[in-house]
Amino acid sequence: MSLIVQKYGGTSVSDVKKIKHVSRRIIERLEQDHSIVVVVSAMGDTTDKLLALAQSISDSPNPRETDVLLSTGEIVASSLIALTLSEMGFEAISLSGSQAGIVTDNLHGNAMIAKVNAGRILKELDSGKIVIVAGFQGVGDDTDVRLLGRGASDLSAVAIAAELQAERCEIFTDVEGIYTADPRIVADAKKISEIGYEEMLEMASSGAKMQPRSIELGMTFGVPILVASTFNNNPGTLIHGGAKIMNPIVGEIRNRVTGVPSEKNVSKITILGAIDQPGVAAEIFEPLSKAGISVDVIVQNTSNSGTTDITFTVKSAQLKEALEITQISSSNLKINGVSAEDGFGKVSIIGTGMLNVPGYASKMFNALAKASVNIEMITTSEIRITCLVKETQLDQAVRAVHSAFDVG
Amino acid sequence: MSLIVQKYGGTSVSDVKKIKHVSRRIIERLEQDHSIVVVVSAMGDTTDKLLALAQSISDSPNPRETDVLLSTGEIVASSLIALTLSEMGFEAISLSGSQAGIVTDNLHGNAMIAKVNAGRILKELDSGKIVIVAGFQGVGDDTDVRLLGRGASDLSAVAIAAELQAERCEIFTDVEGIYTADPRIVADAKKISEIGYEEMLEMASSGAKMQPRSIELGMTFGVPILVASTFNNNPGTLIHGGAKIMNPIVGEIRNRVTGVPSEKNVSKITILGAIDQPGVAAEIFEPLSKAGISVDVIVQNTSNSGTTDITFTVKSAQLKEALEITQISSSNLKINGVSAEDGFGKVSIIGTGMLNVPGYASKMFNALAKASVNIEMITTSEIRITCLVKETQLDQAVRAVHSAFDVG
Repeated sequence: MSLIVQKYGGTSVSDVKKIKHVSRRIIERLEQDHSIVVVVSAMGDTTDKLLALAQSISDSPNPRETDVLLSTGEIVASSLIALTLSEMGFEAISLSGSQAGIVTDNLHGNAMIAKVNAGRILKELDSGKIVIVAGFQGVGDDTDVRLLGRGASDLSAVAIAAELQAERCEIFTDVEGIYTADPRIVADAKKISEIGYEEMLEMASSGAKMQPRSIELGMTFGVPILVASTFNNNPGTLIHGGAKIMNPIVGEIRNRVTGVPSEKNVSKITILGAIDQPGVAAEIFEPLSKAGISVDVIVQNTSNSGTTDITFTVKSAQLKEALEITQISSSNLKINGVSAEDGFGKVSIIGTGMLNVPGYASKMFNALAKASVNIEMITTSEIRITCLVKETQLDQAVRAVHSAFDVG
Repeated sequence: MSLIVQKYGGTSVSDVKKIKHVSRRIIERLEQDHSIVVVVSAMGDTTDKLLALAQSISDSPNPRETDVLLSTGEIVASSLIALTLSEMGFEAISLSGSQAGIVTDNLHGNAMIAKVNAGRILKELDSGKIVIVAGFQGVGDDTDVRLLGRGASDLSAVAIAAELQAERCEIFTDVEGIYTADPRIVADAKKISEIGYEEMLEMASSGAKMQPRSIELGMTFGVPILVASTFNNNPGTLIHGGAKIMNPIVGEIRNRVTGVPSEKNVSKITILGAIDQPGVAAEIFEPLSKAGISVDVIVQNTSNSGTTDITFTVKSAQLKEALEITQISSSNLKINGVSAEDGFGKVSIIGTGMLNVPGYASKMFNALAKASVNIEMITTSEIRITCLVKETQLDQAVRAVHSAFDVG
């Protein structure tokens, strides 16, 4: 009998009716001769509501107590699923992150999983039970609860799947899988049936919804991850190490682009005329990192005069704070000033097939030029090319690139 | 520095405003040079809401999972208080029942506390923290959560106070203490400043609100218990072993009655003409006990003919079920039938001063007779005399008795 780990997100268990639906899906899977461990998020917007309660008490609520508070959301959802399965005549048991053996470091709010002690899960599986684990949480070596960071129920599921050497980790959500582009922007965006971990990482960090650390963990331990809908039986997207895309046929460029992810609400900050010497970048980016501001694209151009312009992007919601920090940290440097601008978006092409194959970048830039989209910044990784464009032109940029590479 | 254990009930922490009020009270107490452990119930009607959620899934929800579900209510409340104290600049930490070392037997829904391993509480107190413990819950030897039964946050508090040899256990609630009679019935009912454990046990089981097991525990370990209001600084009622009432002045009968508790919604069931032989009572009451039906007053009269009538009372809400069980269990006995009647109330006088002193009963019966109240049943214990009366006459019965003994 093979083992499957399933994860259901908050929108999949937002009320009793949906919990019953999820329970029936679990039973269907069980009856296909699988042992099942289910990882569950809090019902609907429970986590946001609990956080709002904490924030109504304090602007910066005590991190340990916030972890305790928010961890109850997943416990409620897991016990309700176990109750429902029990009512349907199946043996089920809910376990907190601690009981499930999810051991973390001692960082509150955004802990890392150190190991999974799966003894209790295995014992319950052996006795024929369906095991329901509260996601998003683990336990430090002081027996106190730790949260793994927002969206990290995915991580709980993949970690358990890795430890138990599960056949597959199935992430059920309110969308059918990963698409070649945002379907709200590109009408003929197609669902991707298979994708490699590295590509999925780039898709995730460029807007598609799956927690990046969980993909990294899946990659490290070779756990196949299916992303599919809770609400229908359509096939979804399988993320794994042996996806077809890993074996490209040289020359057929258009098949090598897996997707065209995009992101709105991007702002850029530029440090003008910095003296080009060691330590400048650290001086700027360390304080931002300490403040929890995620810096995305970084571009540095060196001029002939020995000074350099450094431009980087942040989420628009963090622009004000990021600008203040940058102004303070750059005040010790010899620079000509700091400027900030809002209203950008990012469009990327992703694909391991692009690796060391020329022509992708120019094709993308041509497509944007034909669509009259001006490119503000460019960065590339081995499997990704990203262009910063005006947010008002983002949709037409995505459509133009998606069409040029015939991804759909 | 002396140690105080405080307990706040659900109505005391029903919203953030009240949680802030409670937090300020905790700090006031702290500043009187006390170490403080706080036990807290779930906010407002949280427990009822969670139970309703479980019951919307199943008529008899899985007991283990119901315990897991309901236990989150107290965890939320305890973390919010710790958050608030932290925001106010005081070091505080919330602990689940399990973390606080409340070890129980393995019965779900109504577990007994086996012991309190107070190591973690003591460690946190030693480091200068205010410790907030989630009430109503403990942990079995399988590391699974167990609930102690409704109203059992009182029990958590007294058990911790006993283990830590606290100076006092303070139960804060939405009433100011224990009264000589229900103030809604008797206008001049007085708050009792001190009462013995045994008397309080009789008061509690006759309607006044405090969990009986917690009083027994306080009595066993000699923990003084203060019952007082969360919302003002009036003195409350102190329950302890050395109350003045324990040293009555012989002859001053009227001072020996501590209170006149009363209870509505009482029904009676009568088994007519049972053969008076050993085993009859067990045959009747064992099935009721197994079904969780609390049988209260039991009266048995033996007639000359060798048969006996057995009458007992149950809560009206349990009458239907109790009657069905009694009809089944009595069908093997030679009896003349089973009858049931609803619409009764109980009025009692309580007082250790009554012990072996004649005259109380006749004075009570006289008072009821003068008020034209017919007595349906009578039972007595060493410190209590209880009369069953028609519910429609209950209020006038309580007023008459309260006035006759000049309790107020």
